Amino acid sequence: MKPILVLNGPNLNLLGKRQPEIYGSATLDDVNEAIARLAGELNVSVDCRQSNHEGQLVDWLHEAREGASAVIINAGAYTHTSIALRDAVLALSVPVIEVHLSNIYARDEFRKHSYLSGVVHGTIAGFGVQSYLLALRATQLLVSGSKP
Amino acid sequence: MKPILVLNGPNLNLLGKRQPEIYGSATLDDVNEAIARLAGELNVSVDCRQSNHEGQLVDWLHEAREGASAVIINAGAYTHTSIALRDAVLALSVPVIEVHLSNIYARDEFRKHSYLSGVVHGTIAGFGVQSYLLALRATQLLVSGSKP
Amino acid sequence: MKPILVLNGPNLNLLGKRQPEIYGSATLDDVNEAIARLAGELNVSVDCRQSNHEGQLVDWLHEAREGASAVIINAGAYTHTSIALRDAVLALSVPVIEVHLSNIYARDEFRKHSYLSGVVHGTIAGFGVQSYLLALRATQLLVSGSKP
Amino acid sequence: MKPILVLNGPNLNLLGKRQPEIYGSATLDDVNEAIARLAGELNVSVDCRQSNHEGQLVDWLHEAREGASAVIINAGAYTHTSIALRDAVLALSVPVIEVHLSNIYARDEFRKHSYLSGVVHGTIAGFGVQSYLLALRATQLLVSGSKP
Amino acid sequence: MKPILVLNGPNLNLLGKRQPEIYGSATLDDVNEAIARLAGELNVSVDCRQSNHEGQLVDWLHEAREGASAVIINAGAYTHTSIALRDAVLALSVPVIEVHLSNIYARDEFRKHSYLSGVVHGTIAGFGVQSYLLALRATQLLVSGSKP
Amino acid sequence: MKPILVLNGPNLNLLGKRQPEIYGSATLDDVNEAIARLAGELNVSVDCRQSNHEGQLVDWLHEAREGASAVIINAGAYTHTSIALRDAVLALSVPVIEVHLSNIYARDEFRKHSYLSGVVHGTIAGFGVQSYLLALRATQLLVSGSKP
Amino acid sequence: MKPILVLNGPNLNLLGKRQPEIYGSATLDDVNEAIARLAGELNVSVDCRQSNHEGQLVDWLHEAREGASAVIINAGAYTHTSIALRDAVLALSVPVIEVHLSNIYARDEFRKHSYLSGVVHGTIAGFGVQSYLLALRATQLLVSGSKP
Amino acid sequence: MKPILVLNGPNLNLLGKRQPEIYGSATLDDVNEAIARLAGELNVSVDCRQSNHEGQLVDWLHEAREGASAVIINAGAYTHTSIALRDAVLALSVPVIEVHLSNIYARDEFRKHSYLSGVVHGTIAGFGVQSYLLALRATQLLVSGSKP
Amino acid sequence: MKPILVLNGPNLNLLGKRQPEIYGSATLDDVNEAIARLAGELNVSVDCRQSNHEGQLVDWLHEAREGASAVIINAGAYTHTSIALRDAVLALSVPVIEVHLSNIYARDEFRKHSYLSGVVHGTIAGFGVQSYLLALRATQLLVSGSKP
Amino acid sequence: MKPILVLNGPNLNLLGKRQPEIYGSATLDDVNEAIARLAGELNVSVDCRQSNHEGQLVDWLHEAREGASAVIINAGAYTHTSIALRDAVLALSVPVIEVHLSNIYARDEFRKHSYLSGVVHGTIAGFGVQSYLLALRATQLLVSGSKP
Amino acid sequence: MKPILVLNGPNLNLLGKRQPEIYGSATLDDVNEAIARLAGELNVSVDCRQSNHEGQLVDWLHEAREGASAVIINAGAYTHTSIALRDAVLALSVPVIEVHLSNIYARDEFRKHSYLSGVVHGTIAGFGVQSYLLALRATQLLVSGSKP
Amino acid sequence: MKPILVLNGPNLNLLGKRQPEIYGSATLDDVNEAIARLAGELNVSVDCRQSNHEGQLVDWLHEAREGASAVIINAGAYTHTSIALRDAVLALSVPVIEVHLSNIYARDEFRKHSYLSGVVHGTIAGFGVQSYLLALRATQLLVSGSKP
Repeated sequence: MKPILVLNGPNLNLLGKRQPEIYGSATLDDVNEAIARLAGELNVSVDCRQSNHEGQLVDWLHEAREGASAVIINAGAYTHTSIALRDAVLALSVPVIEVHLSNIYARDEFRKHSYLSGVVHGTIAGFGVQSYLLALRATQLLVSGSKP
Repeated sequence: MKPILVLNGPNLNLLGKRQPEIYGSATLDDVNEAIARLAGELNVSVDCRQSNHEGQLVDWLHEAREGASAVIINAGAYTHTSIALRDAVLALSVPVIEVHLSNIYARDEFRKHSYLSGVVHGTIAGFGVQSYLLALRATQLLVSGSKP
Repeated sequence: MKPILVLNGPNLNLLGKRQPEIYGSATLDDVNEAIARLAGELNVSVDCRQSNHEGQLVDWLHEAREGASAVIINAGAYTHTSIALRDAVLALSVPVIEVHLSNIYARDEFRKHSYLSGVVHGTIAGFGVQSYLLALRATQLLVSGSKP
Repeated sequence: MKPILVLNGPNLNLLGKRQPEIYGSATLDDVNEAIARLAGELNVSVDCRQSNHEGQLVDWLHEAREGASAVIINAGAYTHTSIALRDAVLALSVPVIEVHLSNIYARDEFRKHSYLSGVVHGTIAGFGVQSYLLALRATQLLVSGSKP
Repeated sequence: MKPILVLNGPNLNLLGKRQPEIYGSATLDDVNEAIARLAGELNVSVDCRQSNHEGQLVDWLHEAREGASAVIINAGAYTHTSIALRDAVLALSVPVIEVHLSNIYARDEFRKHSYLSGVVHGTIAGFGVQSYLLALRATQLLVSGSKP
Repeated sequence: MKPILVLNGPNLNLLGKRQPEIYGSATLDDVNEAIARLAGELNVSVDCRQSNHEGQLVDWLHEAREGASAVIINAGAYTHTSIALRDAVLALSVPVIEVHLSNIYARDEFRKHSYLSGVVHGTIAGFGVQSYLLALRATQLLVSGSKP
Repeated sequence: MKPILVLNGPNLNLLGKRQPEIYGSATLDDVNEAIARLAGELNVSVDCRQSNHEGQLVDWLHEAREGASAVIINAGAYTHTSIALRDAVLALSVPVIEVHLSNIYARDEFRKHSYLSGVVHGTIAGFGVQSYLLALRATQLLVSGSKP
Repeated sequence: MKPILVLNGPNLNLLGKRQPEIYGSATLDDVNEAIARLAGELNVSVDCRQSNHEGQLVDWLHEAREGASAVIINAGAYTHTSIALRDAVLALSVPVIEVHLSNIYARDEFRKHSYLSGVVHGTIAGFGVQSYLLALRATQLLVSGSKP
Repeated sequence: MKPILVLNGPNLNLLGKRQPEIYGSATLDDVNEAIARLAGELNVSVDCRQSNHEGQLVDWLHEAREGASAVIINAGAYTHTSIALRDAVLALSVPVIEVHLSNIYARDEFRKHSYLSGVVHGTIAGFGVQSYLLALRATQLLVSGSKP
Repeated sequence: MKPILVLNGPNLNLLGKRQPEIYGSATLDDVNEAIARLAGELNVSVDCRQSNHEGQLVDWLHEAREGASAVIINAGAYTHTSIALRDAVLALSVPVIEVHLSNIYARDEFRKHSYLSGVVHGTIAGFGVQSYLLALRATQLLVSGSKP
Repeated sequence: MKPILVLNGPNLNLLGKRQPEIYGSATLDDVNEAIARLAGELNVSVDCRQSNHEGQLVDWLHEAREGASAVIINAGAYTHTSIALRDAVLALSVPVIEVHLSNIYARDEFRKHSYLSGVVHGTIAGFGVQSYLLALRATQLLVSGSKP
Repeated sequence: MKPILVLNGPNLNLLGKRQPEIYGSATLDDVNEAIARLAGELNVSVDCRQSNHEGQLVDWLHEAREGASAVIINAGAYTHTSIALRDAVLALSVPVIEVHLSNIYARDEFRKHSYLSGVVHGTIAGFGVQSYLLALRATQLLVSGSKP
């Protein structure tokens, strides 16, 4: 089965190193390990990537058209400014879930609007590292179509 | 242990009966059953309520100060208009999670702003009935403080 | 045949007693009698209710799903603030007509927007008590589908 | 007795021929006949006119100062852009009723504001051809001053 | 002589228990006692009530038309969202004074606008419990018409 | 003990002479006498000043840093335009109370915003001359810290 | 010498007949006579026209390119809505003066903006019929270039 | 075959005579000749008209419903203010192309919005007289459906 | 007879010395002389003053309550920022005319709004020094009430 | 002679594969071939490139300063967000033409504004693949300066 | 050689005494001494002044037209509200540099806009007392025109 | 000691070659040389880089966390659009100074807002190449903490 692509946007490589009062102390490696561990439990494969380049993230979303069964994306600051990413998501038919570590609605005014929210399958925000893990579970529910 | 309070706001009693293309075909009873089933698995108790009255929802949130270990709230239309609910959430010290069945960011302009998002612990939107189930799992993670 | 539900929102119980220069001197009882009289002429039954509680009005709209052939609603101040009522109207399949005693477009800026107008069948405003009577006639035309 | 002037603004000559999903399939002739028929029943005379020229509509409203007992106006697109028509209505002492075939509040953002609504006697919108007929009845109620 | 009605809106029942850094540590009972004590000194009777329900507050304002000599109202969160309360105040002929415990102008943007301020006799904000006591004195000055 | 500084801004020297329907018929001398009389009762000293010059008002607020125990300010039109006065208030550690004769929220749109409200201790508006007297009492309550 | 063209826009033919509290009781004929009388004194010829048609006013402004020495224009309601008139004025090299009978800045919000003001030579508003006469004098000063 | 209707709006009759730095020095006759010449080459017939009257342009668009194979329209200033023209375009089933001589996006703020752009087939702006010629070619491509 | 007060606001003392392409080359002395000369012709006395201090201008307007028969004011930059001057004008019962040398509507966005325009008798802008002279004539017409 | 540079922005590499109802079914290769074919006819050389990276597009525009005779650019989503591209266009002296496949004015609100439109030579939108071909013709007309 | 005029606006006389967390602990005397010391090093003379009066600052800027070689201005709160100061700066031909102690862009929304920034030579903000010293150096660079 | 990182954003590689009336005639090499020369005088090392890629600039800012003693950044157009750069600056603990060659406040509306200004240590704009040199001096003052 195709892996689930986990994309992280700009500055998320500094996770655990910048503003820990907002983003927590887990590093991106810690996050990726936690995701891998849960993926193991759920018996799915994941492919975690990070880039500070908007164009690179667009390229990776294009790859997911063929190469992934679902996408989990934390686009970081590009969440609020990138219509290019929005268009790339619109070009996908697999499920896409938007995640945020922090509660973006409780921060700067310009962080309250997301160009992605309107075109993804669902949004999970504010649970720190757990946002990714809940999203991973969500991708499985969406795929398996398990009745409530 | 204190139960998790699950609050549903106006018109959610019609779930499964109105606009199924947006809200799905599961009824509120179906949702409550699914929540109860997962609560059983997770070994927690839940208390599910619904009201069309803003004041009633405020009253119930006040009860949760003493009587609940966490709150999951889908405030329906009051999400977008009620500062009273926002204030009631601010008066709580237990975790509060905001859920929505649909992707509210993909709908009417006036549904994009939530008075609750800025004061809850986290937000989960767009996964239909699964939004509640993911939120239920999230309350457990928040309580147990399980490391990623 | 099912009755036509006539709903009046907050402060309309004071009709004829407050700001008669805007709302006229007829009381709500006068209005209800006039409606009943015309209903008699048109050979339909009507059910007139008033509440200052948003939640109560939502509850009554839900009842109308099964129990009414049409709804005439003057939501008073909730016209301008209630998305919950809008959602409740959206959940109805019978015709809904919005009425106002005064010309709401000639008053305060915040009275010019109605959350209901976009989802009702039609709107009648500015004719005082006659707004209700014209609406009652309109419900008949909608039902009978009489060709112009 | 002076006739009731029924004015139709730009593009209403195409009624029944353009966008029937919004405006219905009745032509302007059909509408005028329906109005004439009801006028006959009500024993009043009507004078129905249409123009695509804003200035022509202003001229006709000026004529109504002397020559009409009431005015029913569907100003079409000029509803949203013409202060000249607003001023012409302000210069009238006979009752003026604004009508719309469609529910203008459920359409484009720029169709939600009417320069006329604030200065007419009342507004009736959303009932298709019946909007005119209800308005015709309303002019009679306003004139006869019939108690509810 | 008719009592002075003191109305408290949503969440004020939690006074002293939530966000004491904003609202102080006095409970609603403490406030009511302080009001009663000053009322005794001033030789007037007071009637203090609280509700989380907008409709209930509207109902009580209606009662005040006959049953109170003045109204002191802290509408809490409804201050910023309720046109229904504004209309109910407009329907009163006795003096109405708006009070707030905190300085609402120094808080969230959405707390800076009050639907009541434009229709009450006067406003007193920022003095904690003393806001009510100053308002009580103000009602006496308004009634006695004492020259400066 | 240091006096309470009472500052009046532009055009308040015309009090009682301009727009008495808004500002009442008492002159500034009348107001100052009434303040002095109540100050006598309360056993405090007051120092009442008026200027049409923004800079003068700033200078006087600076004086109050050393020379006053509290400040009562009606900044008149500068209320709505002066960030300089706001900054001068921010530089004070004694209590500052903003007063207005009229209900500023019921007048022109541009009179609804106050640059002072967000930085003063409290606001009292709409009670005519009594606004000053209530403010004088309030300064005493703030100083004495009298329990409710 | 070429005449001065005096253009009047929509509804000005009703001058003296509508809303005399705003526009005064002089009719358009009165105005034209007053203009003619002063023109006689100043020894210039004038050509006064009125139309309710935006296109007609544009046509007349085009004529003025060759046929007039200056233009005085009261565009009535088109002042606030017509970019076509603005463009026609831009195409003129003779002086153009905008006049208004009433003080447009003291009326409805939408009457405060003029599409003409930014492209005319000067503006005179609020002096009733005298606005035209002052404008007529102004055209002479502009032409004669008389030193102050 | 039916001709292609080329419509020019207000002030375009002055082309080449007003503001040549913006609109170029070619007159409307020059433009029409150039269009005719290219039409000859392309073997199609064209019908070029100009009016300063919004209503006239609406009338001509109505004619095109039966009498033209395509429409090229430069609505001049009405581009930015006329919903009536927008509605008339909406009533057409033949291709409509919006052209502008100048780059309207590089000029006044109020010239950046076009009521037509959202309802035409395509837009060509900024190429001076060539805008019309490119549009003429475009109508042929649209009709012939020539594969790229 | 009382003189006509001519007030000039900030930076007008530099007239003729700054930005002559906007304000012309006449100095304030030149302007005052021209005004005096015309005043002589009209047989009225004038009193011309200039200040860069908002408070001083307010003081002078207060003086005019008793000491002037009319006021001509060019408030310069304070036109756009001073509510204090607006209030001072509101306190006057003699006619007040607002003048501007330049066409303020053709300049920076923030120069298009005047706090004075809504409360003066009339406005004259764009005629350079002649703006004052036309205003002087206008004061005479207002006083003499000369019929057109 | 230097080639014409044809630049395509983000997601245009998916042309024909995503949202064909908006963008058509031709792939980017199809478009490039069509452009090459017409270039052959017109006897010019073209250089077609695509990138999802904003910085890459800026780099290529810099290259065009020396290496291209004209630029045709479809910046995709960067059209609406990139001031960097705008600045790069401003740095070019060769003609630049903006093209869009779809009618961007008929889509999302945030797609209606282009940072490029104000600085390019002209804009062509809505003709699908033909937009590029018309633009190619337009570059020839601009270069050859062919009289209409 | 003429001195460099250093102007400080409202409340800057309290420097070091108010809100030291924002403005630092250096007093205005400290700042002036530091400026004088660096001026000595650079062999230029400086003239430091402070006023809380907008009009006084305008007067001083006028003096600088003849009497200063450059101006350094920290207009304090008037930065955000004074068009009069902007106009006075526009009337200067010597270089003017705007300085701020704090980073005004990181504070209240209303402190982010400066009426001066658009008309000064350059801006230096956020370096505390060093802002003045850097500005002093900058004036020298501007005068000497030293090549990089 | 660690070098000072000098970052230049998009299009700055064209310095001296584009719009010299805004940006001056010095090339980026000239600027870098001037910086190096002053760095030599001040005995510090500098590291000057330029990129048109937002992601590259983010990467370099990340490097500065370990590898630089201060950062001087001219983010060019990304100043106004990049939250990613803002976040990267927020992740730095060394001083960051924002510089601009031109006075960005005197240009297009969209160039007036900077995402960086609110999070940098200070801002220097409008001094051309000297902006960098003043910033270099400022970094030294910040480090050495030299008393005024």
